[in-house]
Amino acid sequence: MSQHTGPHQYVVGVDFGTLSGRALVVRVADGAELGTAVHAYSHAVLDDRLPGGTPLPPDWALQVPEDYRDVLRTAVPAAIEAAGIEPADVIGIATDFTACTMVPTLADGTPLCELPGLADRPHAYVKLWKHHAAQPQADRINRLAEERSEAWLPRYGGLISSEWEFAKGLQLFEEDRELYDRMDHFVEAADWIVWQLCGEYVRNACTAGYKGIYQDGHYPSADFLEALAPGFAGFVPDKLDHPIGPLGARAGGLTAEAAAWTGLPEGIAVAVGNVDAHVTAPAAQAVGPGQMVAIMGTSTCHVMSSDVLHEVPGMCGVVDGGIIAGRWGYEAGQSGVGDIFGWFTEQAVPAAYAEAAAAAGESVHEHLTRLAAQQEIGEHGLVALDWHSGNRSVLVDHELSGLVMGLTLATRPEDVYRALLEATAFGTRVIVEGFRDSGVGVEEFVVAGGLAKNELLMQIYADVTRLPLSVIGSEQGPALGSAIHAAVAAGAYADVPLAAKSMGRVRRDVFVPDEERAGRYDALFAEYLALHDEFGRRTPAMRRLKAIRRAAVERRLAAQGATEAGEGR
Amino acid sequence: MSQHTGPHQYVVGVDFGTLSGRALVVRVADGAELGTAVHAYSHAVLDDRLPGGTPLPPDWALQVPEDYRDVLRTAVPAAIEAAGIEPADVIGIATDFTACTMVPTLADGTPLCELPGLADRPHAYVKLWKHHAAQPQADRINRLAEERSEAWLPRYGGLISSEWEFAKGLQLFEEDRELYDRMDHFVEAADWIVWQLCGEYVRNACTAGYKGIYQDGHYPSADFLEALAPGFAGFVPDKLDHPIGPLGARAGGLTAEAAAWTGLPEGIAVAVGNVDAHVTAPAAQAVGPGQMVAIMGTSTCHVMSSDVLHEVPGMCGVVDGGIIAGRWGYEAGQSGVGDIFGWFTEQAVPAAYAEAAAAAGESVHEHLTRLAAQQEIGEHGLVALDWHSGNRSVLVDHELSGLVMGLTLATRPEDVYRALLEATAFGTRVIVEGFRDSGVGVEEFVVAGGLAKNELLMQIYADVTRLPLSVIGSEQGPALGSAIHAAVAAGAYADVPLAAKSMGRVRRDVFVPDEERAGRYDALFAEYLALHDEFGRRTPAMRRLKAIRRAAVERRLAAQGATEAGEGR
Repeated sequence: MSQHTGPHQYVVGVDFGTLSGRALVVRVADGAELGTAVHAYSHAVLDDRLPGGTPLPPDWALQVPEDYRDVLRTAVPAAIEAAGIEPADVIGIATDFTACTMVPTLADGTPLCELPGLADRPHAYVKLWKHHAAQPQADRINRLAEERSEAWLPRYGGLISSEWEFAKGLQLFEEDRELYDRMDHFVEAADWIVWQLCGEYVRNACTAGYKGIYQDGHYPSADFLEALAPGFAGFVPDKLDHPIGPLGARAGGLTAEAAAWTGLPEGIAVAVGNVDAHVTAPAAQAVGPGQMVAIMGTSTCHVMSSDVLHEVPGMCGVVDGGIIAGRWGYEAGQSGVGDIFGWFTEQAVPAAYAEAAAAAGESVHEHLTRLAAQQEIGEHGLVALDWHSGNRSVLVDHELSGLVMGLTLATRPEDVYRALLEATAFGTRVIVEGFRDSGVGVEEFVVAGGLAKNELLMQIYADVTRLPLSVIGSEQGPALGSAIHAAVAAGAYADVPLAAKSMGRVRRDVFVPDEERAGRYDALFAEYLALHDEFGRRTPAMRRLKAIRRAAVERRLAAQGATEAGEGR
Repeated sequence: MSQHTGPHQYVVGVDFGTLSGRALVVRVADGAELGTAVHAYSHAVLDDRLPGGTPLPPDWALQVPEDYRDVLRTAVPAAIEAAGIEPADVIGIATDFTACTMVPTLADGTPLCELPGLADRPHAYVKLWKHHAAQPQADRINRLAEERSEAWLPRYGGLISSEWEFAKGLQLFEEDRELYDRMDHFVEAADWIVWQLCGEYVRNACTAGYKGIYQDGHYPSADFLEALAPGFAGFVPDKLDHPIGPLGARAGGLTAEAAAWTGLPEGIAVAVGNVDAHVTAPAAQAVGPGQMVAIMGTSTCHVMSSDVLHEVPGMCGVVDGGIIAGRWGYEAGQSGVGDIFGWFTEQAVPAAYAEAAAAAGESVHEHLTRLAAQQEIGEHGLVALDWHSGNRSVLVDHELSGLVMGLTLATRPEDVYRALLEATAFGTRVIVEGFRDSGVGVEEFVVAGGLAKNELLMQIYADVTRLPLSVIGSEQGPALGSAIHAAVAAGAYADVPLAAKSMGRVRRDVFVPDEERAGRYDALFAEYLALHDEFGRRTPAMRRLKAIRRAAVERRLAAQGATEAGEGR
């Protein structure tokens, strides 16, 4: 224990999610979680209309920044009260956020949507990570970058997402130029909330790299941006560029105003901002090379630190200091995991199963899992592709789709369910092997997130990947990770790895691979890989199906439009 | 109208199905259906144990011949009564049966299971068409026939089924030699029931050809049979060979005993036996070249007459006079159709759909069909392979399995349901094109069977095949077809085509192809065909999955056995 960590020192970690923010009070000495509180955003996600009624086009997803401040005002004091500690004993606060979530602001950090007369302008609001209306802009960025062989493109597995800073910024530039011109900063919400706490705008190294295409000290060139859209060359110097702070550093001291909101002492350390997935690594004591952390929920995000820089095919990004300062941070992802299981239970499980689950006091997921667990490996005779939301890593193709093969009249819902569980494990194995084949070793698989509760799923992952599987020891991985960063920012620990050692929690080797089972999964994995390569690399059949579907939807909408016009509407 | 068909002449057709027999009283002059009655077999299908309790191994399916006689005793008089006619006005009776369903008998036709002391011997009973325990025998027949390039093998698409006479006979020969030796005839139930009616054993041309490998005047050679199993060369001369009667011929006159059972006049014409699928063709007035009749139920059987003999890849068989005397009868099949739709509604449709269907007064099938009918072609973005029960025509591979591609989180049950409907239509198109490519033209598609009721399905078939689609005008196709044969056997018409013209019923061109829709299905069919060839011809992935599944099931059974042994059982 460091000399700075007395028994009565505490930190607060605040995790800003998609629908709510959670504050967690943590003891600096040992990471004990003493109290927590959640505040749901009153505006949730604006995907239909603005608060004043202005309708939104499809694929939009906005938020209201005042909802974030409300988390500081309500969840933080509530967590302190739940912890039963003295606010005066809190030495630091840190936050993590969804990303890439962007706030357009004035020079002083005021969000444009809070300015008089702009409440009905969609582009004045926060663009949430899952705002997908900038896809045309992303397509152009990718096309041009590929044409010009931009050196930064391979750092992102060859694809810049429509969710990221440049696509969202270009959409704003092209669709509401007046607002764009009025905007002084296009700020990651991860940094905006820190700015609210300490009055300082510090750009964090994680989102600058993963979402802002900041590589080797540079953003994409003015030349590239001007070729993308005349006038857009100013985006970097005018709206984006700003001093970057390493993760775990102190951004500033808590302002009097923020002290009043939170009830915490003025002047305590406020850490540089962070991202929910990446901040989870230290919470699971997994910041060393070869420790792959998988945050498994509706989708899975993989983060891993390494001392070596390699271009891994299909990764989401590799960023210097992207997870902890001083190491290369790698990120990969599976577009659909828990949401595929959820879709299946909602859309493909008959009433008898729901009734049996209810009678046994189980959820449908638990019921199917229990039935599936009784099978021998391969007994269902199925193999599936887990591409219902496309494939992020390693194929980077969102035109791909899901597939189930081996169906017979004897196939039961638990068979398909298990095949889907296995498919996501096979998808993980492809990613792990992609890292290894690129020279980035993976030695341990550390699971965080809601799916860690499913023991069958976990054992499948251990057997399929032949990796020992550790599970984070906290239900609040991101908030605990933020608390660790707060402790480092406050000087209680010299760096994040040291703090993680004292404050993080992980149960190691909870699931270990069994060689016999692993060998049996090899046979199914070979079938998965054959389908993976056939439909992911060789045959554009899934892409054609998507095109057929889009044309059909357009015909139907046109027909409906004609009908409605005919009805005099 | 023929001079023989007065207004007060009637015939009785009796259709022996898997679980019951149906009698239908029909007016000779115009085919009007006047009365019908059904009798369910009291022993149904023996697939678990014999009536006395003797347990049966897996894949067995037996029946009790007395159940067939009961149909004559109950359903025929009940149908006469329902028709309100004088039994004295009935001039003939004919029957059709499931096939290949085999009765081991003494020289006088007495089934072995009715002999004292043999009631507990499984091989003494009727082997129903779906008795699948002779697969090892069928495998050996096929291997040897291929090795020896037997000329008859291509007449059956290259595969002799485990359901047919030689496989069933060889199983009896090898597993209960004493019974085999005691047996004087191994008789198709289609012929045994005629024997019961008229006291004459006449082998019908249809089953002799399709199920008995009777081609160009010969059965498989003694040489072949001896190579198959020493001593089995006697199977043809001793047990199988018997004079063959053409379809529509008179087998004999109704015996006094059968007249007493049925209440019909002694001495009236009894027609040569027939098979349920094939006898449906004249009932639908579809006995001309190019008229493909599809009997669509749990599976689909395609029958078509032609003046030319060609070897069509993957057909079930081509037989001289197999459907009507004087023409080549072709048969093809799809292993799974209605049973795939049924499996889907039972195993993959959530409670909300069942509730919505009930609220709308619809079956789940009707509900899904109505929802699916609202879609544009291709809107679901899916393509499926309809191989849940394997593929009969044209791939002749029961190791194949079902597949669904294009799944997303937006995929709904009605989407998959429609994709399955379409997949069976694509399977039909592959068969139709296989016939055409072999020089056997298909000009009209005539549907009989339960699935004809689904208008969406019928329109899909018309559009996908680009064929005008006619629908049989009777709910009792097989029984009406038998009645037509009775009328011909009684001399009321010169031949079956003439009788069919007066007595058969069909609604022509009920569904006609639309070229715009057909063009849109072409795009989906191209995807189906790509999957069909990839998994049906190039890649044995589905075969490997079946092997993985079988090994897994064996491991589980072995593990269960070990556990039970450990428990002292």
